[in-house]
Amino acid sequence: MPFRAYDQHCSIAAALEVLGERWTLLVMREVLLGRRRFADLKRRLGVAPNILSDRLQTLVDHGLLIRERYADNHPDAFEYRPTRKGVDVQPVLLTLMAWGDAHATPPGGPPRVAVHRTCGHEAHPQLHCTHCGDALSPRDTQIGPGPGANAQQRAEPLLPASA
Amino acid sequence: MPFRAYDQHCSIAAALEVLGERWTLLVMREVLLGRRRFADLKRRLGVAPNILSDRLQTLVDHGLLIRERYADNHPDAFEYRPTRKGVDVQPVLLTLMAWGDAHATPPGGPPRVAVHRTCGHEAHPQLHCTHCGDALSPRDTQIGPGPGANAQQRAEPLLPASA
Repeated sequence: MPFRAYDQHCSIAAALEVLGERWTLLVMREVLLGRRRFADLKRRLGVAPNILSDRLQTLVDHGLLIRERYADNHPDAFEYRPTRKGVDVQPVLLTLMAWGDAHATPPGGPPRVAVHRTCGHEAHPQLHCTHCGDALSPRDTQIGPGPGANAQQRAEPLLPASA
Repeated sequence: MPFRAYDQHCSIAAALEVLGERWTLLVMREVLLGRRRFADLKRRLGVAPNILSDRLQTLVDHGLLIRERYADNHPDAFEYRPTRKGVDVQPVLLTLMAWGDAHATPPGGPPRVAVHRTCGHEAHPQLHCTHCGDALSPRDTQIGPGPGANAQQRAEPLLPASA
Protein backbone atom coordinates (compact mmCIF):
# COMPACT_ATOMS: atom_id res chain seq x y z
CA MET A 1 0.00 0.00 0.00
CA PRO A 2 1.72 3.20 -1.10
CA PHE A 3 0.87 5.27 1.95
CA ARG A 4 2.20 2.59 4.25
CA ALA A 5 5.44 2.58 2.27
CA TYR A 6 5.37 6.37 2.48
CA ASP A 7 4.93 6.30 6.22
CA GLN A 8 7.76 3.84 6.72
CA HIS A 9 10.16 5.82 4.53
CA CYS A 10 10.78 8.33 7.30
CA SER A 11 13.59 8.85 9.80
CA ILE A 12 11.09 9.57 12.57
CA ALA A 13 9.37 6.23 11.95
CA ALA A 14 12.78 4.54 11.71
CA ALA A 15 13.88 6.09 15.01
CA LEU A 16 10.63 5.03 16.68
CA GLU A 17 11.12 1.45 15.51
CA VAL A 18 13.98 1.43 18.02
CA LEU A 19 13.00 4.12 20.55
CA GLY A 20 9.23 4.25 20.32
CA GLU A 21 8.45 2.66 23.63
CA ARG A 22 8.31 4.42 26.99
CA TRP A 23 10.57 2.05 28.92
CA THR A 24 13.22 2.07 26.21
CA LEU A 25 13.67 5.84 26.54
CA LEU A 26 13.57 5.69 30.35
CA VAL A 27 16.31 3.02 30.26
CA MET A 28 18.38 5.32 28.03
CA ARG A 29 17.75 8.20 30.47
CA GLU A 30 19.12 6.10 33.33
CA VAL A 31 22.11 4.72 31.41
CA LEU A 32 23.07 8.19 30.16
CA LEU A 33 22.90 9.44 33.77
CA GLY A 34 25.43 6.76 34.63
CA ARG A 35 23.25 3.98 36.01
CA ARG A 36 24.45 0.99 34.08
CA ARG A 37 23.88 -2.09 36.18
CA PHE A 38 20.82 -4.24 35.80
CA ALA A 39 19.98 -4.19 39.52
CA ASP A 40 20.30 -0.38 39.71
CA LEU A 41 18.17 0.11 36.61
CA LYS A 42 15.50 -2.24 37.93
CA ARG A 43 15.44 -0.49 41.30
CA ARG A 44 15.41 3.06 39.94
CA LEU A 45 12.89 2.43 37.21
CA GLY A 46 10.62 0.18 39.25
CA VAL A 47 10.15 -1.90 36.11
CA ALA A 48 9.45 -5.62 35.91
CA PRO A 49 12.72 -7.53 35.33
CA ASN A 50 11.42 -9.24 32.19
CA ILE A 51 10.46 -5.90 30.64
CA LEU A 52 13.82 -4.39 31.59
CA SER A 53 15.68 -7.39 30.14
CA ASP A 54 13.68 -7.11 26.92
CA ARG A 55 14.32 -3.38 26.50
CA LEU A 56 18.03 -3.74 27.28
CA GLN A 57 18.32 -6.55 24.74
CA THR A 58 16.60 -4.39 22.11
CA LEU A 59 19.06 -1.58 22.81
CA VAL A 60 22.03 -3.99 22.61
CA ASP A 61 20.67 -5.58 19.42
CA HIS A 62 20.36 -2.14 17.79
CA GLY A 63 23.82 -1.04 18.90
CA LEU A 64 22.84 1.70 21.38
CA LEU A 65 24.25 -0.17 24.37
CA ILE A 66 27.12 -2.60 24.89
CA ARG A 67 26.72 -5.26 27.57
CA GLU A 68 29.83 -5.77 29.66
CA ARG A 69 30.60 -8.01 32.60
CA TYR A 70 31.88 -5.92 35.51
CA ALA A 71 32.64 -8.75 37.90
CA ASP A 72 33.34 -12.45 37.71
CA ASN A 73 31.99 -13.44 41.08
CA HIS A 74 28.33 -13.65 40.19
CA PRO A 75 26.65 -14.60 36.94
CA ASP A 76 24.43 -11.53 36.56
CA ALA A 77 27.14 -8.94 37.00
CA PHE A 78 26.57 -7.07 33.74
CA GLU A 79 26.50 -3.39 33.01
CA TYR A 80 25.42 -1.50 29.91
CA ARG A 81 27.56 1.19 28.30
CA PRO A 82 26.14 3.60 25.72
CA THR A 83 27.69 3.70 22.26
CA ARG A 84 27.82 6.89 20.18
CA LYS A 85 24.48 5.77 18.74
CA GLY A 86 23.16 5.58 22.29
CA VAL A 87 24.64 8.92 23.41
CA ASP A 88 22.99 10.52 20.40
CA VAL A 89 19.60 9.76 21.98
CA GLN A 90 20.31 12.43 24.59
CA PRO A 91 18.86 15.37 22.57
CA VAL A 92 15.62 13.41 22.23
CA LEU A 93 15.50 13.11 26.02
CA LEU A 94 16.21 16.84 26.44
CA THR A 95 13.36 17.83 24.11
CA LEU A 96 11.03 15.44 25.93
CA MET A 97 12.15 16.99 29.23
CA ALA A 98 11.46 20.48 27.86
CA TRP A 99 7.99 19.43 26.74
CA GLY A 100 7.32 17.85 30.13
CA ASP A 101 8.59 20.95 31.93
CA ALA A 102 6.27 23.14 29.86
CA HIS A 103 3.18 20.96 29.79
CA ALA A 104 3.35 18.14 32.32
CA THR A 105 5.54 19.50 35.07
CA PRO A 106 4.75 18.51 38.66
CA PRO A 107 3.78 21.16 41.21
CA GLY A 108 6.84 23.13 42.29
CA GLY A 109 8.38 23.32 38.83
CA PRO A 110 10.87 21.21 36.91
CA PRO A 111 12.37 18.41 39.04
CA ARG A 112 15.63 18.63 37.12
CA VAL A 113 17.40 21.08 34.86
CA ALA A 114 20.02 20.77 32.14
CA VAL A 115 23.21 22.70 32.88
CA HIS A 116 25.72 23.70 30.18
CA ARG A 117 29.06 22.59 31.56
CA THR A 118 30.99 25.04 29.39
CA CYS A 119 29.20 28.18 30.58
CA GLY A 120 27.96 26.85 33.90
CA HIS A 121 24.38 28.06 33.52
CA GLU A 122 21.03 26.42 33.00
CA ALA A 123 20.87 25.55 29.32
CA HIS A 124 17.11 25.57 28.66
CA PRO A 125 17.99 23.68 25.45
CA GLN A 126 16.47 25.14 22.29
CA LEU A 127 16.77 23.94 18.70
CA HIS A 128 18.68 26.24 16.36
CA CYS A 129 19.19 26.32 12.62
CA THR A 130 22.78 25.27 11.95
CA HIS A 131 22.85 27.32 8.73
CA CYS A 132 21.98 30.77 10.12
CA GLY A 133 22.34 30.00 13.81
CA ASP A 134 18.96 31.42 14.80
CA ALA A 135 16.56 29.67 17.14
CA LEU A 136 14.25 27.37 15.20
CA SER A 137 10.59 27.63 16.13
CA PRO A 138 7.98 25.16 14.89
CA ARG A 139 6.34 28.02 12.98
CA ASP A 140 9.61 28.77 11.18
CA THR A 141 10.24 25.18 10.21
CA GLN A 142 9.20 23.46 7.00
CA ILE A 143 9.62 19.85 5.96
CA GLY A 144 10.75 19.00 2.44
CA PRO A 145 12.13 16.11 0.44
CA GLY A 146 15.66 14.99 1.27
CA PRO A 147 18.26 13.14 -0.84
CA GLY A 148 16.60 9.82 0.01
CA ALA A 149 13.05 10.98 -0.70
CA ASN A 150 10.79 8.56 -2.51
CA ALA A 151 8.68 9.60 -5.51
CA GLN A 152 5.75 10.68 -3.35
CA GLN A 153 7.96 12.79 -1.10
CA ARG A 154 9.78 14.39 -4.04
CA ALA A 155 6.42 15.39 -5.50
CA GLU A 156 5.35 17.20 -2.33
CA PRO A 157 5.70 20.92 -1.70
CA LEU A 158 7.48 22.19 1.39
CA LEU A 159 5.12 21.41 4.25
CA PRO A 160 4.78 23.48 7.40
CA ALA A 161 6.15 21.54 10.36
CA SER A 162 3.42 22.86 12.63
CA ALA A 163 0.40 23.24 10.38
CA MET B 1 9.17 2.57 46.97
CA PRO B 2 11.44 5.60 46.92
CA PHE B 3 13.12 4.90 43.63
CA ARG B 4 9.81 4.46 41.89
CA ALA B 5 8.71 7.83 43.25
CA TYR B 6 12.07 9.19 42.14
CA ASP B 7 11.60 7.85 38.64
CA GLN B 8 8.10 9.28 38.34
CA HIS B 9 9.19 12.71 39.55
CA CYS B 10 10.72 13.56 36.19
CA SER B 11 9.58 15.64 33.23
CA ILE B 12 10.85 12.99 30.79
CA ALA B 13 8.72 10.34 32.48
CA ALA B 14 5.79 12.77 32.60
CA ALA B 15 6.16 13.53 28.89
CA LEU B 16 6.37 9.83 28.07
CA GLU B 17 3.15 9.18 30.00
CA VAL B 18 1.50 11.09 27.14
CA LEU B 19 3.91 10.63 24.22
CA GLY B 20 5.68 7.38 25.01
CA GLU B 21 4.06 5.27 22.35
CA ARG B 22 5.15 4.96 18.74
CA TRP B 23 1.77 5.59 17.11
CA THR B 24 1.09 8.63 19.28
CA LEU B 25 4.19 10.39 17.97
CA LEU B 26 3.49 9.31 14.38
CA VAL B 27 -0.04 10.73 14.68
CA MET B 28 1.49 14.02 15.90
CA ARG B 29 3.92 13.95 12.97
CA GLU B 30 1.03 13.67 10.53
CA VAL B 31 -1.18 16.27 12.23
CA LEU B 32 1.70 18.75 12.42
CA LEU B 33 2.30 18.19 8.69
CA GLY B 34 -1.31 19.20 8.12
CA ARG B 35 -3.06 15.85 7.84
CA ARG B 36 -5.93 16.24 10.24
CA ARG B 37 -8.75 14.05 9.07
CA PHE B 38 -9.30 10.59 10.47
CA ALA B 39 -9.48 8.93 7.05
CA ASP B 40 -6.27 10.63 5.87
CA LEU B 41 -4.43 9.70 9.05
CA LYS B 42 -5.58 6.10 8.79
CA ARG B 43 -4.54 5.87 5.14
CA ARG B 44 -1.16 7.53 5.58
CA LEU B 45 -0.20 5.72 8.75
CA GLY B 46 -1.57 2.35 7.71
CA VAL B 47 -2.71 1.92 11.29
CA ALA B 48 -5.69 -0.08 12.54
CA PRO B 49 -8.69 2.25 13.04
CA ASN B 50 -9.15 1.22 16.67
CA ILE B 51 -5.52 2.04 17.46
CA LEU B 52 -5.76 5.37 15.66
CA SER B 53 -9.00 6.22 17.50
CA ASP B 54 -7.38 5.36 20.81
CA ARG B 55 -4.27 7.45 20.19
CA LEU B 56 -6.31 10.42 18.93
CA GLN B 57 -8.54 10.23 22.01
CA THR B 58 -5.45 10.17 24.25
CA LEU B 59 -4.11 13.28 22.50
CA VAL B 60 -7.48 15.04 22.81
CA ASP B 61 -7.82 14.01 26.47
CA HIS B 62 -4.38 15.46 27.23
CA GLY B 63 -5.05 18.69 25.35
CA LEU B 64 -2.58 18.24 22.46
CA LEU B 65 -5.33 18.04 19.82
CA ILE B 66 -8.79 19.54 19.48
CA ARG B 67 -11.41 17.52 17.65
CA GLU B 68 -13.54 19.59 15.27
CA ARG B 69 -16.33 18.70 12.89
CA TYR B 70 -15.47 19.89 9.39
CA ALA B 71 -18.71 18.92 7.66
CA ASP B 72 -22.26 18.18 8.59
CA ASN B 73 -23.10 15.79 5.82
CA HIS B 74 -21.60 12.68 7.32
CA PRO B 75 -21.22 11.62 10.94
CA ASP B 76 -17.49 10.89 10.94
CA ALA B 77 -16.38 14.19 9.45
CA PHE B 78 -13.95 15.18 12.21
CA GLU B 79 -10.52 16.69 12.03
CA TYR B 80 -7.89 17.20 14.69
CA ARG B 81 -6.14 20.52 15.21
CA PRO B 82 -2.99 20.83 17.31
CA THR B 83 -3.02 23.12 20.35
CA ARG B 84 0.11 24.96 21.52
CA LYS B 85 0.77 21.92 23.71
CA GLY B 86 0.59 19.79 20.56
CA VAL B 87 2.74 22.11 18.44
CA ASP B 88 5.36 22.01 21.20
CA VAL B 89 5.88 18.30 20.40
CA GLN B 90 7.54 19.31 17.14
CA PRO B 91 11.09 19.65 18.57
CA VAL B 92 10.79 16.09 19.89
CA LEU B 93 9.97 14.92 16.36
CA LEU B 94 12.92 16.89 14.93
CA THR B 95 15.39 15.31 17.37
CA LEU B 96 13.96 11.86 16.59
CA MET B 97 14.34 12.63 12.88
CA ALA B 98 17.96 13.70 13.42
CA TRP B 99 18.70 10.49 15.30
CA GLY B 100 17.02 8.44 12.57
CA ASP B 101 18.96 10.32 9.88
CA ALA B 102 22.22 9.61 11.67
CA HIS B 103 21.63 6.04 12.78
CA ALA B 104 18.65 4.47 11.03
CA THR B 105 18.48 6.28 7.71
CA PRO B 106 17.36 4.30 4.68
CA PRO B 107 19.70 3.81 1.70
CA GLY B 108 19.98 7.01 -0.29
CA GLY B 109 20.04 9.32 2.72
CA PRO B 110 17.41 11.20 4.68
CA PRO B 111 13.94 10.96 3.11
CA ARG B 112 13.04 14.41 4.37
CA VAL B 113 14.83 17.49 5.64
CA ALA B 114 13.87 20.37 7.91
CA VAL B 115 14.10 23.76 6.21
CA HIS B 116 14.34 27.04 8.13
CA ARG B 117 11.70 29.26 6.55
CA THR B 118 13.41 32.45 7.70
CA CYS B 119 16.80 31.76 6.08
CA GLY B 120 15.59 29.32 3.43
CA HIS B 121 18.26 26.70 4.07
CA GLU B 122 18.31 23.20 5.51
CA ALA B 123 18.20 23.66 9.27
CA HIS B 124 19.94 20.48 10.50
CA PRO B 125 18.40 21.34 13.88
CA GLN B 126 20.85 21.34 16.79
CA LEU B 127 20.22 22.03 20.46
CA HIS B 128 21.83 25.19 21.82
CA CYS B 129 22.27 26.61 25.30
CA THR B 130 19.91 29.57 25.62
CA HIS B 131 22.22 31.21 28.17
CA CYS B 132 25.44 31.43 26.13
CA GLY B 133 24.01 30.53 22.73
CA ASP B 134 26.56 27.81 21.98
CA ALA B 135 25.67 24.42 20.57
CA LEU B 136 24.91 21.98 23.36
CA SER B 137 26.57 18.60 23.00
CA PRO B 138 25.69 15.63 25.21
CA ARG B 139 29.24 15.74 26.58
CA ASP B 140 28.81 19.39 27.60
CA THR B 141 25.48 18.82 29.32
CA GLN B 142 24.90 18.03 32.97
CA ILE B 143 21.68 17.28 34.80
CA GLY B 144 21.01 18.82 38.18
CA PRO B 145 18.15 19.45 40.59
CA GLY B 146 15.50 21.97 39.53
CA PRO B 147 13.11 24.08 41.59
CA GLY B 148 10.73 21.12 41.84
CA ALA B 149 13.38 18.57 42.81
CA ASN B 150 12.49 16.09 45.52
CA ALA B 151 14.79 15.35 48.45
CA GLN B 152 16.65 12.62 46.60
CA GLN B 153 17.23 14.83 43.56
CA ARG B 154 18.35 17.80 45.69
CA ALA B 155 20.92 15.56 47.36
CA GLU B 156 22.48 14.52 44.05
CA PRO B 157 25.53 16.10 42.46
CA LEU B 158 25.40 17.40 38.92
CA LEU B 159 25.28 14.30 36.76
CA PRO B 160 26.77 14.00 33.29
CA ALA B 161 23.96 13.74 30.74
CA SER B 162 25.93 11.24 28.66
CA ALA B 163 27.91 9.25 31.22
